[in-house]
Amino acid sequence: MSIKVPFKQVDVFTSEPYKGNPVAVINCLELDESEINQSQLQRIANWTNLSETSFLFKPTIEKCDYKLRIFTPQTELPFAGHPTLGSCRAYLEFTGKKNVEKIYQECKLGVIEITSEGEKLSFEGAKTDVVDIPCEVAEEYGKSLSAEITERPRLLEVGPNWVVALVKDAQTCYDMELDFTQMKASNLKHGSTGLIIAGRYGNEDKYEMRAFCPLDGIAEDPVCGSGSLALARYLQDVHNYKSTYSFAISQGGRVGREGKVSGLIKHESGKITYHVGGQAVTAIDGHILIKLSEESNFST
Amino acid sequence: MSIKVPFKQVDVFTSEPYKGNPVAVINCLELDESEINQSQLQRIANWTNLSETSFLFKPTIEKCDYKLRIFTPQTELPFAGHPTLGSCRAYLEFTGKKNVEKIYQECKLGVIEITSEGEKLSFEGAKTDVVDIPCEVAEEYGKSLSAEITERPRLLEVGPNWVVALVKDAQTCYDMELDFTQMKASNLKHGSTGLIIAGRYGNEDKYEMRAFCPLDGIAEDPVCGSGSLALARYLQDVHNYKSTYSFAISQGGRVGREGKVSGLIKHESGKITYHVGGQAVTAIDGHILIKLSEESNFST
Repeated sequence: MSIKVPFKQVDVFTSEPYKGNPVAVINCLELDESEINQSQLQRIANWTNLSETSFLFKPTIEKCDYKLRIFTPQTELPFAGHPTLGSCRAYLEFTGKKNVEKIYQECKLGVIEITSEGEKLSFEGAKTDVVDIPCEVAEEYGKSLSAEITERPRLLEVGPNWVVALVKDAQTCYDMELDFTQMKASNLKHGSTGLIIAGRYGNEDKYEMRAFCPLDGIAEDPVCGSGSLALARYLQDVHNYKSTYSFAISQGGRVGREGKVSGLIKHESGKITYHVGGQAVTAIDGHILIKLSEESNFST
Repeated sequence: MSIKVPFKQVDVFTSEPYKGNPVAVINCLELDESEINQSQLQRIANWTNLSETSFLFKPTIEKCDYKLRIFTPQTELPFAGHPTLGSCRAYLEFTGKKNVEKIYQECKLGVIEITSEGEKLSFEGAKTDVVDIPCEVAEEYGKSLSAEITERPRLLEVGPNWVVALVKDAQTCYDMELDFTQMKASNLKHGSTGLIIAGRYGNEDKYEMRAFCPLDGIAEDPVCGSGSLALARYLQDVHNYKSTYSFAISQGGRVGREGKVSGLIKHESGKITYHVGGQAVTAIDGHILIKLSEESNFST
């Protein structure tokens, strides 16, 4: 038997619909996870054809508001950035909760703390590990770009494992072309999710950023939250900031979007945390068919 | 100003959700086409990331039930098959019409006649022109396939312009790999939309079919209606049937779908017409935000 459950498609990192990165959010809060045909989750995510489709379930950790399962068209992810903010916006709308400052999301990576401030939602990175990569591997990644890398790439393990690098400036980042065949081979060989390239706007606290993950079937991700988190952690590693630093990231121009992301490297009580935020707006609102697990193959 | 209009995402060429080819259908029947910000149509189609997104408008041709505008993420199309059937299913549900036998769709290619029979919808090809292609061009297309072509390719102008060819059998079709770089170059050089490859299941009236259109950013289309129409017309050209011939087409297995299409080459009163049909089921039902044309850039 199939039932209808609430559905939203939320545009993330924009205040204006269709300029950000969409995520499909399916509300299974009223169901038990075991009631749902599990193979269906991946099948739906393949069918929506979005970079991510997420499912809200009842949390299994007491402090959490919900458990989020995130799928690309090919696989399930431990964590992803824009689906986290989009699913949180959907959760607040589904439940009618207002004036909530903190929301706790359970996901495979762990507990993600989300802060709501006015129209903006931001998440704190639960994992932000910097890993050095050998010179020859860095050079290999460089070969897939038409622009020169100006700061040695590092591998950032933030859930996905992004190789992050800087180019001369924002315009260089915007203009550069990629050799996807070469880059795909490098990602496969070194087990990375993809490549994050950024360039600064003059002396502003603002970067142009692009995210590439051809292994997942997504040549260029319009606006990438976990990639923005990786960039924040990378910038701390490069510049060794001694106090809190906040910056803006512009993404998606080359694929017809206008994503606006805020990055925050927060120094507090001797501890550094990394935060990524932005607005998120629901563009599609309704219901979606989902199969219950006890059914035969013939009901719809 | 943005308003909410009815929205459906319909799964086409399947009776079971998530096994066919989705199309997003936006109901603008209550609006005048001029009231809508036109640049928004392409922007929404880019954002849904589906192979096609369609918009239902009031018809401008008297006999028609509605006017359909069909967009890929990159461009507007004169006609497309699975969006025609999916949008017709959505139209019938939006308007509550039942027991209708014929529906007439206005689109850029002309008037499309759709027949409703039980759960099945089928359309008649409005344009089915066979064009011979030179041997060296046929050979060039052949080079992009890992399997040998067993019947000379033709160019089928059915709205999109498909190059159609047969391989040895259904299994060969299912198993073969494509060199997308080579094929993309051939499509670009010769102005074709993409490639339709089919192989027959033994002596059954059934074919396995695959559709490739990397130029549109879609490596393999899960289930292709206009491609099925092209195949029907091609089979008539190859076999020169003297009476009505109907056959089944299975598509999408290699990309995780189970599309079921029916093809019909109808001989009647000395005239041959070509028909493609299948079931279509609504999986997502709700509303979508759409901008009216008189707005500023700042409202949502």
